Amino acid sequence: MRPHVFVNVAMSADGKISTKERRQVKISGKNDFVRVDRIKAESDAIMVGIGTVLADNPSLTVKNPDLRAMRRQEGKDEDPIRVVVDSQARTPPDADILRKGTGRRIIAVAGSAPRERVEELGKLGTVVVVGETAVDLAELLNILYRYGVRRLMVEGGGTLIWSLISQGLVDEVYTYVGSLIIGGKDAPTPADGQGFLNEADFIRLRLRDAEPMDDGLLVRWDVRSEP
Amino acid sequence: MRPHVFVNVAMSADGKISTKERRQVKISGKNDFVRVDRIKAESDAIMVGIGTVLADNPSLTVKNPDLRAMRRQEGKDEDPIRVVVDSQARTPPDADILRKGTGRRIIAVAGSAPRERVEELGKLGTVVVVGETAVDLAELLNILYRYGVRRLMVEGGGTLIWSLISQGLVDEVYTYVGSLIIGGKDAPTPADGQGFLNEADFIRLRLRDAEPMDDGLLVRWDVRSEP
Repeated sequence: MRPHVFVNVAMSADGKISTKERRQVKISGKNDFVRVDRIKAESDAIMVGIGTVLADNPSLTVKNPDLRAMRRQEGKDEDPIRVVVDSQARTPPDADILRKGTGRRIIAVAGSAPRERVEELGKLGTVVVVGETAVDLAELLNILYRYGVRRLMVEGGGTLIWSLISQGLVDEVYTYVGSLIIGGKDAPTPADGQGFLNEADFIRLRLRDAEPMDDGLLVRWDVRSEP
Repeated sequence: MRPHVFVNVAMSADGKISTKERRQVKISGKNDFVRVDRIKAESDAIMVGIGTVLADNPSLTVKNPDLRAMRRQEGKDEDPIRVVVDSQARTPPDADILRKGTGRRIIAVAGSAPRERVEELGKLGTVVVVGETAVDLAELLNILYRYGVRRLMVEGGGTLIWSLISQGLVDEVYTYVGSLIIGGKDAPTPADGQGFLNEADFIRLRLRDAEPMDDGLLVRWDVRSEP
């Protein structure tokens, strides 16, 4: 058993999530910010890859006080469980994701992660060791389900999204397409990694809806379960 | 003076125009095929980069006999002028773009292109030498305008689109977003090249419309002329 997994990502009209230097850039606007905060508040956990933690240092907390109050009234922590996929335990101990907000943190590492860093992180959150040299994502989702996570939001980056999606572990993909061109053959995209080589392997989606938002477009896709 | 320039590109939901091996893949469907054929027939010229010629060997002819007849009745060649941007004159003499269909071909090369290959291509089309080591695209558009081209369609690939767009030479961008995930940090995207590093340099677009088509979405953007 695993949680319902949805990816939420903002990209430029040419499919980039930041510049090739991985500088965090403003792709969406105010209405999208409100939307993302809401879907975050509606999630049991929010997952991010170590690359994004190192590049952006996000806290991934719920920002709107009303949404935080809503969660409290429902008997939940004000913030969803924050999960870092971090094979080699490289999350800096002073990272905002570990220091800001309330609620549980889970750092998923591989068996090969240096012991000292694992112990250090263990003081700041729950360290889960899954997989030998890389995090076993299917098993991690299984563990999250056992921890009560039914709805999991994936924030990025492109490497984590690729790994989840290529392993068939994603149910929905929300892409905010911003009104700008970033360009760059080395700029990160919503799904990086190795990529598929054969058409038969592509992950197929079903368009649910597309809605103009701010100056761009929010597109929601369901992942087709049949191959 | 330059023609009105629009880019037409099909990408996956994660912003890829093909696999990392540059294998041509089916991203859109039948209705989009009809749409692309129509906008091609409505253009005076269609431009493509040498990378796309070498990878896909496209003919870029108008396929629908009615549209070919329409062009003929308007006193035009059945196919728009086909333009290859090919700094080093690498277009194979047997390329479909030179051999199939009717009408003029223009091969734009740089001054540094090997003389023999330029002479060979000169037998198959009009060779235009613009720029020293790379094709000067602004000057090429100027020449196309003098040749009567008022409406120019750009088919790709990502390197040519990046060069045009980063030089402010594009008026509209049409992206067909297909219902699939290709993935791959090295897979080509609609705008490759160097990419912008600073937010202030990004090209800004204005969403004109988004329309479900086949299993995906046709999104049309205007390039904002102010910086």
